[in-house]
Amino acid sequence: MKKIRIGLLGLGQIGSGLYEILISKKRQFEKQLGVSFEIVRIAEKYPNRRRKVRPPQSLVTKDAFDVVRDPSVDVVVELIGGTTFSGEIIKTAFKEGKHVVTANKALLAEHGDEIFELAHRMRRWICFEASVGGGIPCLKALREGLVANNIESIYAIINGTTNYILTQMTETGMDFAEALKGAQKKGYAEADPTLDIEGVDAAHKLAILVRFAFGGRVKFSDIYSEGITRISSDDIAFAKEFGYVIKLLAIAKKSKNGVEARVQPTLLPKTHILASVNQSFNAVMLRGDETGDVMFYGRGAGPHPTASAVIADLMDISKRDIDGPVDDETVIRALGSEIEIKSITTILSRYYLRFYVIDQPGVLAGISKILGRHKVSISDMIQRERSVGKVVPLILLTHEAPEKDVRAAIRVIDRLSFVKGKSQVIRIEEAGS
Amino acid sequence: MKKIRIGLLGLGQIGSGLYEILISKKRQFEKQLGVSFEIVRIAEKYPNRRRKVRPPQSLVTKDAFDVVRDPSVDVVVELIGGTTFSGEIIKTAFKEGKHVVTANKALLAEHGDEIFELAHRMRRWICFEASVGGGIPCLKALREGLVANNIESIYAIINGTTNYILTQMTETGMDFAEALKGAQKKGYAEADPTLDIEGVDAAHKLAILVRFAFGGRVKFSDIYSEGITRISSDDIAFAKEFGYVIKLLAIAKKSKNGVEARVQPTLLPKTHILASVNQSFNAVMLRGDETGDVMFYGRGAGPHPTASAVIADLMDISKRDIDGPVDDETVIRALGSEIEIKSITTILSRYYLRFYVIDQPGVLAGISKILGRHKVSISDMIQRERSVGKVVPLILLTHEAPEKDVRAAIRVIDRLSFVKGKSQVIRIEEAGS
Repeated sequence: MKKIRIGLLGLGQIGSGLYEILISKKRQFEKQLGVSFEIVRIAEKYPNRRRKVRPPQSLVTKDAFDVVRDPSVDVVVELIGGTTFSGEIIKTAFKEGKHVVTANKALLAEHGDEIFELAHRMRRWICFEASVGGGIPCLKALREGLVANNIESIYAIINGTTNYILTQMTETGMDFAEALKGAQKKGYAEADPTLDIEGVDAAHKLAILVRFAFGGRVKFSDIYSEGITRISSDDIAFAKEFGYVIKLLAIAKKSKNGVEARVQPTLLPKTHILASVNQSFNAVMLRGDETGDVMFYGRGAGPHPTASAVIADLMDISKRDIDGPVDDETVIRALGSEIEIKSITTILSRYYLRFYVIDQPGVLAGISKILGRHKVSISDMIQRERSVGKVVPLILLTHEAPEKDVRAAIRVIDRLSFVKGKSQVIRIEEAGS
Repeated sequence: MKKIRIGLLGLGQIGSGLYEILISKKRQFEKQLGVSFEIVRIAEKYPNRRRKVRPPQSLVTKDAFDVVRDPSVDVVVELIGGTTFSGEIIKTAFKEGKHVVTANKALLAEHGDEIFELAHRMRRWICFEASVGGGIPCLKALREGLVANNIESIYAIINGTTNYILTQMTETGMDFAEALKGAQKKGYAEADPTLDIEGVDAAHKLAILVRFAFGGRVKFSDIYSEGITRISSDDIAFAKEFGYVIKLLAIAKKSKNGVEARVQPTLLPKTHILASVNQSFNAVMLRGDETGDVMFYGRGAGPHPTASAVIADLMDISKRDIDGPVDDETVIRALGSEIEIKSITTILSRYYLRFYVIDQPGVLAGISKILGRHKVSISDMIQRERSVGKVVPLILLTHEAPEKDVRAAIRVIDRLSFVKGKSQVIRIEEAGS
């Protein structure tokens, strides 16, 4: 039987989950899959912290370099997170001839060039299924199952925290702050939720998806991202009236004149399959030129789903000649020339615009005149409450318009005396529905 | 560069689609994937039929045995369909030392034991991603991506024809016959639609899913299947009032006392993600003990989606040592002891019951008394139209009850003088939503 000797870095939530499964299903994997996974070394900064699992003390070290330099280790599983130390340790692992499995999306998004280059140069496996979509085998589908396709677009819900918050807001009408508190209480949001609610986590994952879907280097800072902190319960209610739900979407599209890639709150038709992806679930929809739309749905986080993805990577590695040199064509392609991502200001989109205005004659005329002057044309409108002299919401949906024209128009509109506060601008996507 | 020499059996819709992609993307696959796919021989019964593609006449033979016995062929791609001739030819291919890729779900469902056994004995690859879910890489996900999981249940929409028909009925209120005609016109249903509308095609695919999800032999005839021909527009409308949609579901569940596996029209909560799978789209939802629910969605049929799956299989084969002996652990597991599938009469379910009754006093009392006597209790009811002396629909939803008790009760009810025609019985599944 094949034996894979694992060096595990990090015994936090995910590391503990992985340890638990590899121990409890050891016999099952040996019998059914013909491979024996042995955890031969574990690095953990706080070895004495209370946790669910208790590996033999003899395996545990505080120094991650002990693990990656241990000659008995075949594969290093990096579950430390962060980008600085984890980057160093992974690079050392490759130099020591180890294969690497990681769930670290921030590292791969921000320092993917270095990591993938070194993996390729050292001819070792770099596997990272767990980095996007947790337990959903979406990268395997992209890199193997859809190999006959040129990927044309990506529409993805890849942050469980924000999807949970938006679902709560949609179902109960509560506002963002309250929904965030609820998410924190239930463990769906961290004490410092910034990376999630500002869209950075989703952008990390999108960078990885774009890299492997379109084949080439991706400069992370080129990916525009916008979070959900400014989405109000009003916006969700008005979107609903127009037949839309609001989702934080990671979007990438290939077109004749370049690639778009961005994370943004989006109005999505409520009949679209992604509109039914609720709570903390994730989904990645890829459009292949042969298959059309294909979608992968499931739990995007959590110790066991994430560990499930790590084990799938370990299985894949075990099926190859682990001592031989690795040629991973998908990694080579992902090291190709840089994918030029268009600036957000150059994109075309339909828009949802929400203004708070003083209810007085001439308001709609004033706003629509400015939009018209910037060649932004209106497709739909809601101005429900009539309350002369009071501040009321005014909602406009636009036809497709260049982002820069919309921005220019909004800058002018926001200075009008009867417009109160900052206007809300949310892009609308039909997403091929 | 690795070269894979393909013998193609069948140049119908799917065969032509495959040929087209392998020719038009030849350079791309060579450059990006490092593999050269060469079609070295093609068998087609009607070589002169008009079709989109025109392979060189020198490659084409009428005799499929020419192809599988050709020493220059590495992999045989079987796209003939049917179970008798295709079975013979695949077995010959294995005996000749070829690997086999097939899209043939009927063959694998009905004669899987023979085919998988011979593949295993000859130590050749048998790949069949295209047999379930067309272009959706769901079998790869099941066999590789979810390898760390014990699969607990399967809920799948795996027949595009019936899903298209039910979607049309739901969206427009048309009846089954009219929706079928529309589906035939649009090419979503065949001239003889029996295998689709009676649930046989879905049962074939379910047999393959069960085999690889639960690991063991499956006797196809043990899988209960029921089609959609008796679903009326009334049923769809009443289901909607209760908050359900009607879908043809392929269901399998593992429980302490055995495995359930069946294809049936099902009332599914309209908030369930599978309820949003419409038109001719397919979706396979698997529940893993580590991942929870994971779903794969896309086009379940069509030449290009299906060819996409075939090419993914070819790629997988190309990554291995194609001359060496094959050990496919998932195939070995699928040849394990037979999975005992429980008889449909022993299952527990909730039910939707629709009776046409003469509107007269005592009808509801009479029916509910009989149900009660069989220990079937009612959870909900609709008896809308009042039209004394006329025939009106009466809809009851039940709590969970044993199938055999419901059947016994229905037999008695159907004999009541005020009950007209055969009663409708549709199972309800919450499917973990």
